[in-house]
Amino acid sequence: MTARTLHLNINVNSSGRHPASWRAQRDPLAFLDPAYYETIGRLAERGRLDAVFFSDGYDYGAPTVARPWQAFDPLIPLTAVARATSHVGLVATVSSTFNHPVNIARRIASLDHISGGRAAWNVVATRAPDAARLFGMEALPDHDTRYARADEVVQAVRALWDGWDEDALVADQASGRFADPSKIHPVAFHGAHVDVEGVLNVPRSPQGRPVILQAGGSPQGVALAAKHADAVFCVNHTIEAAREFYADVKDRAAAYGRAPEQVLILPGLFPILGATEREAWARKDRLDELAGTEGELAALAGSIGLAPEDLSLDAELPWDKLNALPPVPGSQGFRTAILDLADRERLTVRELLRRNPAGHRSVVGTPEQVADTIEDWFTTRAADGFNLNTDYFPEGLEMLVDLLVPELQRRGLFRTEYAATTLRGNLGLTTPRARRSGPGRAGAAAG
Amino acid sequence: MTARTLHLNINVNSSGRHPASWRAQRDPLAFLDPAYYETIGRLAERGRLDAVFFSDGYDYGAPTVARPWQAFDPLIPLTAVARATSHVGLVATVSSTFNHPVNIARRIASLDHISGGRAAWNVVATRAPDAARLFGMEALPDHDTRYARADEVVQAVRALWDGWDEDALVADQASGRFADPSKIHPVAFHGAHVDVEGVLNVPRSPQGRPVILQAGGSPQGVALAAKHADAVFCVNHTIEAAREFYADVKDRAAAYGRAPEQVLILPGLFPILGATEREAWARKDRLDELAGTEGELAALAGSIGLAPEDLSLDAELPWDKLNALPPVPGSQGFRTAILDLADRERLTVRELLRRNPAGHRSVVGTPEQVADTIEDWFTTRAADGFNLNTDYFPEGLEMLVDLLVPELQRRGLFRTEYAATTLRGNLGLTTPRARRSGPGRAGAAAG
Repeated sequence: MTARTLHLNINVNSSGRHPASWRAQRDPLAFLDPAYYETIGRLAERGRLDAVFFSDGYDYGAPTVARPWQAFDPLIPLTAVARATSHVGLVATVSSTFNHPVNIARRIASLDHISGGRAAWNVVATRAPDAARLFGMEALPDHDTRYARADEVVQAVRALWDGWDEDALVADQASGRFADPSKIHPVAFHGAHVDVEGVLNVPRSPQGRPVILQAGGSPQGVALAAKHADAVFCVNHTIEAAREFYADVKDRAAAYGRAPEQVLILPGLFPILGATEREAWARKDRLDELAGTEGELAALAGSIGLAPEDLSLDAELPWDKLNALPPVPGSQGFRTAILDLADRERLTVRELLRRNPAGHRSVVGTPEQVADTIEDWFTTRAADGFNLNTDYFPEGLEMLVDLLVPELQRRGLFRTEYAATTLRGNLGLTTPRARRSGPGRAGAAAG
Repeated sequence: MTARTLHLNINVNSSGRHPASWRAQRDPLAFLDPAYYETIGRLAERGRLDAVFFSDGYDYGAPTVARPWQAFDPLIPLTAVARATSHVGLVATVSSTFNHPVNIARRIASLDHISGGRAAWNVVATRAPDAARLFGMEALPDHDTRYARADEVVQAVRALWDGWDEDALVADQASGRFADPSKIHPVAFHGAHVDVEGVLNVPRSPQGRPVILQAGGSPQGVALAAKHADAVFCVNHTIEAAREFYADVKDRAAAYGRAPEQVLILPGLFPILGATEREAWARKDRLDELAGTEGELAALAGSIGLAPEDLSLDAELPWDKLNALPPVPGSQGFRTAILDLADRERLTVRELLRRNPAGHRSVVGTPEQVADTIEDWFTTRAADGFNLNTDYFPEGLEMLVDLLVPELQRRGLFRTEYAATTLRGNLGLTTPRARRSGPGRAGAAAG
């Protein structure tokens, strides 16, 4: 299709985005039940969403103890969702720092096969120091090293996926010829961080190359996205910053020789809906009250590099202290977005918490109001779509699907039927030129 | 229960055990279809089998090019099977050499949750040199090192599973108390090969400790099994050797302070069935003819450390050459079993191939004949059950379920209904003493 199409994923991270999500759910242990994820997948498909996006991390500590958070390895619930649905995409976040490219390539290709071509890998470099200790490291490798490794891991994973030509499997029962070894190409990738030599034992998957997403707003993350990603999951709180980011990534992609429209920019968006604006705020206030300020204050402090006791609810952020900080570990995308918002609107800590309980841009209002902001961002090229968050599952997603999606469809912004059965097709991404062996074929192994 | 119960798994490795399996299947690409694995799972459950056992490896080369073989990461099809069944166990083979214990613990615990307590991890140390190169190693670590690492990986995985007390999740929506941090215990495991420090972000799974199987017949493999495994998957071709192995493992388990009946011995068994013995042999001969001898000759040569040209179809194995070999890499269990059989019965290579196309003990005959040998092995303590193989899926498994299982049930050897909903329960394994916090609790972290 020639017209741009809006793309919407739903971000699934156990109970929902709001810290009080689990207290509002019918079953606070739903996150341990596969049927719960299948319900989410079916709802997303009913709403014609592009994909369910499973965030992931190895973090333990505050989030895990305070609420359900990214418990399962995402490939497991995503497989259950794959079997309960037929069109919705399946995005698995897998850390490039703590997984070998062979295991990543194999698992995502397996999901791609089992879902008929709906798998995506969301590359994250992992920023939690806890994760490093869990994996036996004294400390997390520094930011540059993690991204240098991520770049190599992505290259190695792609090379492994590309190892099988489309016509490598013959499977001729009469002659007994199963595969054509001349169409299976060993990878020889030797980087500074990653070495892979050999062939993945999974035949080419339906998408050929499963979709690659990148999440992370640091310069290195953006470079990785521009170079390799089919879509970028980012944090942007203002339309101006988002447009700048959008143009920057598209320009960089072009500089890498890529078609700019083949890198989709999908900022996080956290709508809380109501039939009226007042109802929406009442829903949010009820949840905020359940959550209290303590946990969110600690999360806010942590993400900007301070301690909770550095913050006073009814004062602005301690700018002097913030400006004096040495470089802060953790997500730079989240940190910058929070500080920009607080600075621009001179918010007190209490106001900031109400506006931004989880770091992604929050919009509280009617379906029309949320659709307005989506339309504005989409048409002025601040975004190609959004990674939606919802307060709690499944009810919050039901509201998105039953209230917001129809409004977007009425405006001609969003599909009413899926255009394809693969995620790549629904995202409007071209199918990568698959190697087919034969006369004149270059035959160079990737690497 | 007090009476011993026979245990039966079905070994799933893509198309079936016979090298010509895929040529006899209705769809030679069935191994890429999730519905195929769900059919296998439902059949296994109809036959009241203990578990579907997914073998796995990273091998590429002869097997992958010649036939479907262990393509998908087993956790993916096993999740699909989990959702299509309610009682059958789910065994995932995962290499301890090429996976970090945190990733193993998390993925198996996720499967245990999503299946309501039916997950098992089959520990393998991986013997394929190809796999090492794929993972960027110049060569496979030596046998001792791989098993020393496997031992540590198992300890670390268990410690991670045991990190959460049974009552650590509070999930009290009214008070907002989600988890009790005093009931979540950081692991600090520091070995020569593995370091883990922290907490798995998956709450205690339904089995508490998913079942652990060990496959491998070397002395180090047997030691690992005796020390840690709930069940051993082994290769034994004669009842005498099997009884010796059985007694040895049970004795060693006792020496580690374990109850011998809590380590189940499950040799591989490859029945080919027919209504008459003649029909069974006709089925096998048809498949053997389809396969030809070339591939099997190469596989046989490889597993005993020779080249195919060292073997002549109508002569015995070249014993002089075999005896002069230095220590041979690869599976010692398979090698010993093959050589013992050939030596004992003075078989020609052709006869050997007909008897033993894949390394596991093959029995060709009627359900009564196969049940006789199962009964003999079971009652004389050569086995607690079997890891069954079948020629090709799903038809071979249908025959096992519809012909062999009823015969075993008639003899009172095999269950007619599942005794439990967990794999641990159906295997007759005790539930590991779960830590519950409280006064007097020792509180020492595993490690």
